[in-house]
Amino acid sequence: MSMFVKQTWYMAGWSADLSQDAPLGRSIAGELLVLFRDSEGRASAIQDRCPHRGVQLSLGKVLPAGLECGYHGMVFAGDGRCVKIPGQDSIPYRANVRRYPVEERDSMIWVWLGAAEDADPALIVDYPWHNQSDQWPHREGYFHFGCGFEMLVDNIMDLSHLGWVHARTIGGNPDQHAEAVMNVERTDRGVRFTRWLLNSTPPPSYSKVVSFAGNIDRWIELELVAPGVIMQYNGGVDVSQDAYNGGSRDGGFNWRILHVLVPETADTCHYFTSVSNGFRQDEPEVTDKLLADVHDTILEDKVICENQQRNLQEQPEPPLMDINSDQARVLFRWHLARLLKAENQETVAA
Amino acid sequence: MSMFVKQTWYMAGWSADLSQDAPLGRSIAGELLVLFRDSEGRASAIQDRCPHRGVQLSLGKVLPAGLECGYHGMVFAGDGRCVKIPGQDSIPYRANVRRYPVEERDSMIWVWLGAAEDADPALIVDYPWHNQSDQWPHREGYFHFGCGFEMLVDNIMDLSHLGWVHARTIGGNPDQHAEAVMNVERTDRGVRFTRWLLNSTPPPSYSKVVSFAGNIDRWIELELVAPGVIMQYNGGVDVSQDAYNGGSRDGGFNWRILHVLVPETADTCHYFTSVSNGFRQDEPEVTDKLLADVHDTILEDKVICENQQRNLQEQPEPPLMDINSDQARVLFRWHLARLLKAENQETVAA
Amino acid sequence: MSMFVKQTWYMAGWSADLSQDAPLGRSIAGELLVLFRDSEGRASAIQDRCPHRGVQLSLGKVLPAGLECGYHGMVFAGDGRCVKIPGQDSIPYRANVRRYPVEERDSMIWVWLGAAEDADPALIVDYPWHNQSDQWPHREGYFHFGCGFEMLVDNIMDLSHLGWVHARTIGGNPDQHAEAVMNVERTDRGVRFTRWLLNSTPPPSYSKVVSFAGNIDRWIELELVAPGVIMQYNGGVDVSQDAYNGGSRDGGFNWRILHVLVPETADTCHYFTSVSNGFRQDEPEVTDKLLADVHDTILEDKVICENQQRNLQEQPEPPLMDINSDQARVLFRWHLARLLKAENQETVAA
Repeated sequence: MSMFVKQTWYMAGWSADLSQDAPLGRSIAGELLVLFRDSEGRASAIQDRCPHRGVQLSLGKVLPAGLECGYHGMVFAGDGRCVKIPGQDSIPYRANVRRYPVEERDSMIWVWLGAAEDADPALIVDYPWHNQSDQWPHREGYFHFGCGFEMLVDNIMDLSHLGWVHARTIGGNPDQHAEAVMNVERTDRGVRFTRWLLNSTPPPSYSKVVSFAGNIDRWIELELVAPGVIMQYNGGVDVSQDAYNGGSRDGGFNWRILHVLVPETADTCHYFTSVSNGFRQDEPEVTDKLLADVHDTILEDKVICENQQRNLQEQPEPPLMDINSDQARVLFRWHLARLLKAENQETVAA
Repeated sequence: MSMFVKQTWYMAGWSADLSQDAPLGRSIAGELLVLFRDSEGRASAIQDRCPHRGVQLSLGKVLPAGLECGYHGMVFAGDGRCVKIPGQDSIPYRANVRRYPVEERDSMIWVWLGAAEDADPALIVDYPWHNQSDQWPHREGYFHFGCGFEMLVDNIMDLSHLGWVHARTIGGNPDQHAEAVMNVERTDRGVRFTRWLLNSTPPPSYSKVVSFAGNIDRWIELELVAPGVIMQYNGGVDVSQDAYNGGSRDGGFNWRILHVLVPETADTCHYFTSVSNGFRQDEPEVTDKLLADVHDTILEDKVICENQQRNLQEQPEPPLMDINSDQARVLFRWHLARLLKAENQETVAA
Repeated sequence: MSMFVKQTWYMAGWSADLSQDAPLGRSIAGELLVLFRDSEGRASAIQDRCPHRGVQLSLGKVLPAGLECGYHGMVFAGDGRCVKIPGQDSIPYRANVRRYPVEERDSMIWVWLGAAEDADPALIVDYPWHNQSDQWPHREGYFHFGCGFEMLVDNIMDLSHLGWVHARTIGGNPDQHAEAVMNVERTDRGVRFTRWLLNSTPPPSYSKVVSFAGNIDRWIELELVAPGVIMQYNGGVDVSQDAYNGGSRDGGFNWRILHVLVPETADTCHYFTSVSNGFRQDEPEVTDKLLADVHDTILEDKVICENQQRNLQEQPEPPLMDINSDQARVLFRWHLARLLKAENQETVAA
């Protein structure tokens, strides 16, 4: 019985992380993979372990024929087939290594850890804004966290932490949003969560970067696709645009954050993030600044989440309790449990 | 069955360690506590773990109402009651956390890990000299040791180690004390241990700080209160004062050392120490120097005790052996075993 | 059932490592030993653990009477007998510690971990070149590796790794040796492995240090004595000397490398190495250079072998596979398994 969801696409890296020359080792959900590009630039992922003496293939070199082990020179194609064993002509079947389905799109590389025949690319979330560099110029980031990925999803699903964890950065008075129009709904694959502040005075942080004529409608929208992709859209536009009722959200302050949380081990995870600038697209330094701001807050989350991980390991008892602000978080946990249960039942049935 | 004595007062910190503003996390005998002062300055101790998401409360902030969690803002009073959950009005019972009885006296904060109803303040050792700043000005210190606290008690209970471990600092020729009048006696709660050198020439280290008319009577007295408090009193006065037979010990060279050894985990511990200057009370630099000298010797003990801990873990066999100089040490171990046995029997009976 | 061969001589250090003054702690095959020289300079080895309180004796001091514990001053002779307990006259039997048979020869100190009565010095490999400073001036080195010693023996027994691991240092084109005359043979206690390149052009690295008249015969010879001693002899001389058929190997380029691989724990080991210069004996800087070159390649091996150890611990499955170049390596593993099996059977029978 696996502790990880395997029948899913996990982000393994940014497209830009994987050059033509060098392999990239990545540990995902307890499995060690090595990614590399073949001579046509197509990304592949195979087990990061030479079947001969067990060295990681990610120490090796990318050749036109495939990935060459750095120890005794065996070469593996992108589909896991061993294509060369120095010093012998025949290549036995067990010289091959496991390959993982890979999809690359929207500047991201995704791998499938489950049964290869179930790897349906349609299940990968669409994030078209990464491809719209004129309208949504973006920046990419990466963090390694010493906590289970689910603690990081929890963190984002309960935004009330902004008032405490991020008091010195983006968080404000935790009570100021009392009049917000809130909505949390379960979706097929996760949770959608919105908060609107209608007809409100633009806060200084908004006015500083965009000039408004008068009052604005502000929103924050989060969509989680379980297990660990969260798309966040924030902004505010002039009340006249009636954005709340479906009007245009252009022309004011607005930007997007992508959070991709990927389990590495039971108590460590990868945090891929991007910011997309939707309001001053021609100014690269504005987009840079968005990423820098997000990084600062992520480092604050890192302190909390890693403390939580360690503390729950040292003090597992008594059971934790839910409070009102946990509504979206609880839905996430429900989805996660459902995915794990379905998968483990399949494994038992198979 | 606990490996630690729980029905006892453990020192959790110096009074000066606990400001009005900031909480203090402290791990004692396998339990994680957070100490903080309420708005009247009274010290409290509760479990260092928020019941909501498990983060350590010692990352939080002290408010007039209590200790606020740094993650989502729940607040806890000094008795462990949750007094605020942001975003909801009702506070369920299980939002409360465990509180620990606390006593503060003689510049020290003590906590009781056992059943709260058994927490009798009369069991705390008296150390009135901490309050006599004119007669006994003192300095406080703290060390963290990578060994079980009992190895540190062992260390102090067998002073013959001075000749080897502290040869470069306070230890002299290990054979010079052969003519000493020694006495080791078991007390109700520990061991008392004295050594007198009667009518002896004052050693250079004594003469350097105090001028003597002629020969002196010298003493070293140790009292252990199990599990881990050791009060040490050293000095020498003119033979005419007949100190050995109960005469005054004032006017010569004399000072006190307090050693409080507190288990943290099975193989780490806290070492609180103070020195009290009983001979040149008006000279703060003399008191400072006493602490500095003690620190140097403690760092020498640290090397030995941590090596012992590691080596016994790697090489547990064969069983260790006692020698003559272990008399006081063996009594300490007898008391420790007795406390643990009584407690575990109570637990079984309950 | 031991995971280590115990009935064998393990190298514990270079003679030069063990001064007259200071003890040397060394962990070998899961046992902690301390080595020291008695007043006549004879090397001894006893358990590195005082029977009184368990501190490592290697923290102590070498006295004329033996090794003195740095905690309470007990003294142990080279045969493990306790010869002094401060504060008491009688010395009980259990104050003695285990002694290990020791032999010192050819600049190396060897210890026997098995039953003392089986410690036959004739089993120690001879390495007379260490004593021939005119003909074979040598240099000594030491490395600590984070891998099982058998991975390091594997490494050396399959020289095909030179083409990949040492491409930047001593390794050349891996295909250039295709025409070599190869021979691998099992010996009583290990494996002998030779490779000859007959009547070949001297490579630039040879010509740079020795001038040849024309073509040469080149050899590399390896002899493993299980579990972990490997003697390597490399060189090349003028074809006229007919070295391949037993003629003289003098006068050209030739040097020796000794590799002594000693298990420390299951996943760490000691790597002692020496180089002996057989071609420009009067030039110390040439011998120094040989050692420096070997060090560079050993650091390359370290990266590979430690990665292999870690990766096999994280990814033990599927089983590894052998390839053609593993012939000598497989014989080594066969000998190792045989030694372990014989020993464990003896233990069961005893």
